[in-house]
Amino acid sequence: MGSSVIRVAINGFGTIGKRVADAVDAQDDMEVAGVTKTGPSFGCSLAAKKGYPLYCTSDDPDRIASFSSGGYDCQGGLSDLLSSADVVVDCAPGKMGAANLAKYEAAGIKHMFQGGEKHELTGLSYTSSANHTENLNARGTRVVSCNTTGLSRTLVPLYEIGDSLRVECTMIRRAADPGDSKKGPINAIKPVLKVPSHHGPDVMTVKPEIEINSLAVAVPTTLMHVHAIIADLPTGHGQTTESILDLWRQTPRVIVMHGESDRLTTTAEVMEMARDIGRKWGDLHEVFVWEDGVKLVGDRLYYFQAIHQESDVIPENIDCIRALMGVESDWKASVAKTDSAISDYYGL
Amino acid sequence: MGSSVIRVAINGFGTIGKRVADAVDAQDDMEVAGVTKTGPSFGCSLAAKKGYPLYCTSDDPDRIASFSSGGYDCQGGLSDLLSSADVVVDCAPGKMGAANLAKYEAAGIKHMFQGGEKHELTGLSYTSSANHTENLNARGTRVVSCNTTGLSRTLVPLYEIGDSLRVECTMIRRAADPGDSKKGPINAIKPVLKVPSHHGPDVMTVKPEIEINSLAVAVPTTLMHVHAIIADLPTGHGQTTESILDLWRQTPRVIVMHGESDRLTTTAEVMEMARDIGRKWGDLHEVFVWEDGVKLVGDRLYYFQAIHQESDVIPENIDCIRALMGVESDWKASVAKTDSAISDYYGL
Amino acid sequence: MGSSVIRVAINGFGTIGKRVADAVDAQDDMEVAGVTKTGPSFGCSLAAKKGYPLYCTSDDPDRIASFSSGGYDCQGGLSDLLSSADVVVDCAPGKMGAANLAKYEAAGIKHMFQGGEKHELTGLSYTSSANHTENLNARGTRVVSCNTTGLSRTLVPLYEIGDSLRVECTMIRRAADPGDSKKGPINAIKPVLKVPSHHGPDVMTVKPEIEINSLAVAVPTTLMHVHAIIADLPTGHGQTTESILDLWRQTPRVIVMHGESDRLTTTAEVMEMARDIGRKWGDLHEVFVWEDGVKLVGDRLYYFQAIHQESDVIPENIDCIRALMGVESDWKASVAKTDSAISDYYGL
Amino acid sequence: MGSSVIRVAINGFGTIGKRVADAVDAQDDMEVAGVTKTGPSFGCSLAAKKGYPLYCTSDDPDRIASFSSGGYDCQGGLSDLLSSADVVVDCAPGKMGAANLAKYEAAGIKHMFQGGEKHELTGLSYTSSANHTENLNARGTRVVSCNTTGLSRTLVPLYEIGDSLRVECTMIRRAADPGDSKKGPINAIKPVLKVPSHHGPDVMTVKPEIEINSLAVAVPTTLMHVHAIIADLPTGHGQTTESILDLWRQTPRVIVMHGESDRLTTTAEVMEMARDIGRKWGDLHEVFVWEDGVKLVGDRLYYFQAIHQESDVIPENIDCIRALMGVESDWKASVAKTDSAISDYYGL
Repeated sequence: MGSSVIRVAINGFGTIGKRVADAVDAQDDMEVAGVTKTGPSFGCSLAAKKGYPLYCTSDDPDRIASFSSGGYDCQGGLSDLLSSADVVVDCAPGKMGAANLAKYEAAGIKHMFQGGEKHELTGLSYTSSANHTENLNARGTRVVSCNTTGLSRTLVPLYEIGDSLRVECTMIRRAADPGDSKKGPINAIKPVLKVPSHHGPDVMTVKPEIEINSLAVAVPTTLMHVHAIIADLPTGHGQTTESILDLWRQTPRVIVMHGESDRLTTTAEVMEMARDIGRKWGDLHEVFVWEDGVKLVGDRLYYFQAIHQESDVIPENIDCIRALMGVESDWKASVAKTDSAISDYYGL
Repeated sequence: MGSSVIRVAINGFGTIGKRVADAVDAQDDMEVAGVTKTGPSFGCSLAAKKGYPLYCTSDDPDRIASFSSGGYDCQGGLSDLLSSADVVVDCAPGKMGAANLAKYEAAGIKHMFQGGEKHELTGLSYTSSANHTENLNARGTRVVSCNTTGLSRTLVPLYEIGDSLRVECTMIRRAADPGDSKKGPINAIKPVLKVPSHHGPDVMTVKPEIEINSLAVAVPTTLMHVHAIIADLPTGHGQTTESILDLWRQTPRVIVMHGESDRLTTTAEVMEMARDIGRKWGDLHEVFVWEDGVKLVGDRLYYFQAIHQESDVIPENIDCIRALMGVESDWKASVAKTDSAISDYYGL
Repeated sequence: MGSSVIRVAINGFGTIGKRVADAVDAQDDMEVAGVTKTGPSFGCSLAAKKGYPLYCTSDDPDRIASFSSGGYDCQGGLSDLLSSADVVVDCAPGKMGAANLAKYEAAGIKHMFQGGEKHELTGLSYTSSANHTENLNARGTRVVSCNTTGLSRTLVPLYEIGDSLRVECTMIRRAADPGDSKKGPINAIKPVLKVPSHHGPDVMTVKPEIEINSLAVAVPTTLMHVHAIIADLPTGHGQTTESILDLWRQTPRVIVMHGESDRLTTTAEVMEMARDIGRKWGDLHEVFVWEDGVKLVGDRLYYFQAIHQESDVIPENIDCIRALMGVESDWKASVAKTDSAISDYYGL
Repeated sequence: MGSSVIRVAINGFGTIGKRVADAVDAQDDMEVAGVTKTGPSFGCSLAAKKGYPLYCTSDDPDRIASFSSGGYDCQGGLSDLLSSADVVVDCAPGKMGAANLAKYEAAGIKHMFQGGEKHELTGLSYTSSANHTENLNARGTRVVSCNTTGLSRTLVPLYEIGDSLRVECTMIRRAADPGDSKKGPINAIKPVLKVPSHHGPDVMTVKPEIEINSLAVAVPTTLMHVHAIIADLPTGHGQTTESILDLWRQTPRVIVMHGESDRLTTTAEVMEMARDIGRKWGDLHEVFVWEDGVKLVGDRLYYFQAIHQESDVIPENIDCIRALMGVESDWKASVAKTDSAISDYYGL
């Protein structure tokens, strides 16, 4: 593709950054310009094995030099990376957004943040199914969180049935990621006492027409979030439980499977199925809907969905790069291209 | 009180039965006629220590005789117990209801089942705050489950504000009791795929005027259930978040405490507080509402509450005995009497 | 007992402090002079309900005054409490020992620390079964940790069989207490990588003749620690598995029960049995040995025991008070007196 | 390789079977003749995607026909599969060994069982590092369990230092696999009350010269087993902690990493590292030894190791096929060939 290949910097090479890098690497219209680490560590080996140029999150010469002590070849500081890339995907741990934004603006580079940052940081948010067009050629944006991404995938098509949707969502959240051994609780339920919680309304940063509130609890599991959703369709919607299942079956990045028949009755079995699919890290990019957990009662739809919190936003990051760079204005075309490449890459 | 003391048989001396027995024993208007076990086991020691007459769940002479092998003094079979009591509280493990009902009817004894049985078994259900009067002098009834009991306590007063209430409840359920090591899941969330679930609508067996549905998930914890509730009050309700908190503060068997200020942000801390209170087994009979987790937004009320699944129905069992025997027609008077005796008994 | 009643100050009224206070209160030869809190909180209500005089951990007048904001009656600062007591039991959170020791020495008061502090702090440690006599009339000492206390109870009698014992212990430790929702891991095993670990050798601070090492792991449970022990008896010991079980059955504060027959196969069932016994907080002061998990193979004894980490040191704290005050030189007499009073107090 | 390619039947396509199939598929000297399922299910899709011929575990025509209802192409019954293969790897769920053995013998096919079956079934066991030569050209054998395999890898080289080794191992076992949501305990420790346990002595089925006993507990985690080991070297061994680490660093299928420096302090972080490596299912075939958890004290070596219970036996199954077929008499050559192919296959 020659000079038109988009060069993507990834600032932060942890849970999200390592996945974004592999997904970028799998596309034919973009490449990894480099990834950053704060210092020498196991993550640097991973970057080296993949052949991703390694940079330091800081421009401090001493810190850059420190990488050699671990046997790693560091190409320079963040500024060096930014100057050689077209767009930066910020995958830094939470709440470093404001400081990093200033650096990206100073470098004059397009930029994307993750859902750990607030909408106000950029004044613009992104998810493929809701507002790809709005983000075309923008200077910077924020890819919404794993929860908001998953909600948008099933709610946007519901909204489009009758241009009206009122939603209440209870989020049963995993308390820690699988590789995190520090957080609890071991044996308790922790409600998010700010009610309604901020989680649901975040959907409105990408689809303001959906009226949504949420309640959230954290529980002792590491695998997935589960959403228990009630969605009120407008009267006269003309839908049935089965027609809504069909709608979702045709929606990208939504998997509909049967809990009882497919023996997928808990998030443990769902993630085991994902390991069988065989993507890196056993990831499941799709939101998972239990077919036998969906029921339309009058205008009110009840359903459950599960979110792989570590990976569901990865394909949206790829689509968002294309939106910012203005290379693909049709969201479904981008989604098809992204997903095809990721599937190829992961060997399906 | 002489001959007017109600003699209570307790059929089944496990998680619920042992608690009901102690609560009966603490009242001055009733006494434990006896408790049953299927055979010699640790539970028999507990009954002996308490001085409760011990009977066999069966009338089979061989099984009755088998108790002596464990060093226990068995007074006879279930029939013997039933013939010496005024009312039997069925605390058998789930789904033995129909068989036991036949025995109780044959013995001509008043009877109460627990919430593990269906409403249809007796055609009548009970919870103190909803329908004490309806149960006065009934032949038999069912004390509703821990979840329904807890829901009724906070929902009935909400209903009475404007004689209208529509409720959606997501139940985050403990997967096993603390003394149960067999059940999982260890690291997963299990949605109840029958949607809406049966849990919420069970409230309508005691308060049919409340319109309620629910969704439920099981999570890897043993301590408490948590309910995430949205309740729609009728327009013109005239309430505020604070007025509703005041309403609950005046409601029996509802505890309102502040999660952040009182350092009770999870069910672990709530149950530790219960252990500090010092009732037997560290029980918490009250439904626990987080003050800072309640918010009225227009007509819609959001709140969280937690249920100690092993003990919250115990005081309702006592009130229900009085209802069936027709000795106290005022539910609040029975509640006050029950709770005062339990508190005295447990040393508060 | 008049003026000879020992006045006990308890500095810190948390997990251990609240239990020590109740155990002191239950004895007829000692009384609670007061307990300390850092500021107004739920624990102050607990002290008030018990009637324990409440003091501030600090002598700062502003902090002392702050208690009234919570509606609590604070009697003064730590110095005031120390001046009115004969002995202070330090139940402060870990690593405040050195600072507190200086205060106790300045006040000229006898003092006891808990096992979270190092032996070197006082140069003397205590557990009832190992070295009561050594601690008679000492100025200050340290009651060893829950693990060391439990180990001493079963190992000291084994040592006394032939005046020789070599032990290896693997400790499977609960990662957090039941009321603690902050610590993890949720789904992992965490080895203590310092090997051999410090836990086992701590036994030698009270019984130097026992040769012992240990390995330790933390696991996602809150209920109890479990010890997997191999103990090498001297050749010619003349013991059998059954004779060792008999030895332990006659040892104070050791419970021997059968896992399979008594349906106590995990720590969940063991702690449920403890709740049935009915002590405050569902505590189990005794070390629990599974009868069917003991086997002598030649000179090597294999066994499992379980430790209720929140409560097993409580009776030893009481005995230790008597040792420091020189009022009872026979450890078994003190143990009998302590345990009888605690049992009475708790209603057994 | 023409007609000399070994045709491998895999009877049972679950946790172990699916992994063995992929590993066979990755080798150039063997191929998957077919895999069996009991009936139509998600696992059939997996086989179809991989291109593995699908057979029924039964020869019953009705059951064979039932696969078409799920849209699967079933090639026949077990007998058909056995008649077209050189060797069968039995990956059936536990305790079907005797019945299956009869079928294999009737079919006159070489056969391998997994560690869930007893040694007595075949009278011969296998693990690459201990007894490859003994298994050359055998009719049938048993690949030892995940625990025994992991123990053999670190213990056999220790034994060979001085032709003597006495070992005690405490096994802290995961209670359920990650995809299993039925088993508990949620919040308890379950000791294996048969002491010493059968786990350690199973090493003697492949290396009788090692004297070993074990104790075992199950804990609420799904990721890995951990072994806490003490191994007594013969006096005059001439080793140091560092020399033993070097020995293991040169041993196939042993990974030595530093817990603190590499931030791999729990099994959660170890398995996250495995996911980063990128093998299918995030597997870790190697036994993992914490460098900073190894210490030689006199003749006694203390160490921890972790076992990925779902995958560590997979490469041994491949080596075992070569042993039975007599195609490679040098175990280290087979190990190198196996591991190279698996690494290639998995993209490292």
